[in-house]
Amino acid sequence: MELYVGIAKIRKYATSQSGDTVEVVERPNGGLSVVLADGQSSGRGAKWISTLVVRKVITLLSEGVRDGAAARAASDSLFTERGAKVSSTLNILSVDNQTRTLVITRNNPAPVLIANNEDITVLDETSLPIGLYRGTRPVINELELEPGLTTVVYSDGIVHAGSRYGEKMDVSICLQAMLEDEDPTPQLVADALLENAIKLDRGRPSDDISVVVLRVMGRSGDEVRRMSVRLPLDIQ
Amino acid sequence: MELYVGIAKIRKYATSQSGDTVEVVERPNGGLSVVLADGQSSGRGAKWISTLVVRKVITLLSEGVRDGAAARAASDSLFTERGAKVSSTLNILSVDNQTRTLVITRNNPAPVLIANNEDITVLDETSLPIGLYRGTRPVINELELEPGLTTVVYSDGIVHAGSRYGEKMDVSICLQAMLEDEDPTPQLVADALLENAIKLDRGRPSDDISVVVLRVMGRSGDEVRRMSVRLPLDIQ
Repeated sequence: MELYVGIAKIRKYATSQSGDTVEVVERPNGGLSVVLADGQSSGRGAKWISTLVVRKVITLLSEGVRDGAAARAASDSLFTERGAKVSSTLNILSVDNQTRTLVITRNNPAPVLIANNEDITVLDETSLPIGLYRGTRPVINELELEPGLTTVVYSDGIVHAGSRYGEKMDVSICLQAMLEDEDPTPQLVADALLENAIKLDRGRPSDDISVVVLRVMGRSGDEVRRMSVRLPLDIQ
Repeated sequence: MELYVGIAKIRKYATSQSGDTVEVVERPNGGLSVVLADGQSSGRGAKWISTLVVRKVITLLSEGVRDGAAARAASDSLFTERGAKVSSTLNILSVDNQTRTLVITRNNPAPVLIANNEDITVLDETSLPIGLYRGTRPVINELELEPGLTTVVYSDGIVHAGSRYGEKMDVSICLQAMLEDEDPTPQLVADALLENAIKLDRGRPSDDISVVVLRVMGRSGDEVRRMSVRLPLDIQ
């Protein structure tokens, strides 16, 4: 099998920095983890929080700590450091070579979508952000890896897209339409979902928006790992 | 301006794990850093070392430590932990929004290539891997960001490609040929350089190989950050 991840991010209109942080790391026993945190409010303060949370989680994962324990540690750490005054959402998506599963860890009211080919399931069990209470637990789902498995994770910029204009994005329907098409790459899916959200916000995102799409496919290519990044710079 | 990074990696033929580690992280003041380490020997032990080195560097960078200091810290740390018995190469490529420069930090005998449009410079000043001596210093080059600036960094799998068969890859010539073509994406350049090296090794890489290509371009697109990953899994 092979794994494809596509990530698309944009910051809130007229802010200097996105408060969302997304990072991808190798797991010590093979496979990878994608960690997404959305710090409370926006701009520099939010970025500081989401960076802290993602750093904490990544350090623990790289030491072999399991995802659920890493999420709890990040929660306790933020709770202690900021005296229950600051929250952050946290999602961890991990593909582990040893367990041969996809582990979805969620401390985020925003749902996670799972598509098995064109069959979509919404994971929307109540889930709290971290940092506000002692002992906050993540919601964890573990799925067997199989070709055609697609997961979509996003920050609340998607949830609130268009709300200022009385509109709302139906992510499931957008995803369904895309999967019915041909075989879209995760990057195409992430880009299309983000574009849709920006359109609902009339071209001026009313919050930071991040979309992560992970897809498992049958092995068709070579043994090469690849990573591409595109980053607009604030320099003329 | 905008920044594109392309990374391509393959492990040594018939090993379970690459000893090279490459990770990309956001910088706290905007921009990003790519960190590449190649741990001594190959397989699990090498992976352990390169992961340790990259983790150390990334943690420091995320705290705002400058690249040269992070490289020295990683060297002292590996030297102390492994009693001068284990080495690792280390390259850091950073694009910083505040300084508006590209900083190239090198603790690696393998050279780094800089292309300014089609003009290629080879950075091959003597540079030692970290971990073997007290006080090892990196070689640092700092360049102004400008459209057309391309940097190529690689592990010694490229340097030794074909050596078993009395052949050698001329990376400058390969790069020149590609840049003369049209406007290749960094991912295309990284893929082509890796493919060339694998061919020289007759399809069986005699070492772990990693290639990182970073390119600065004029702003032509939107405000969206993107990241794509492709990972072959050892699962049927």
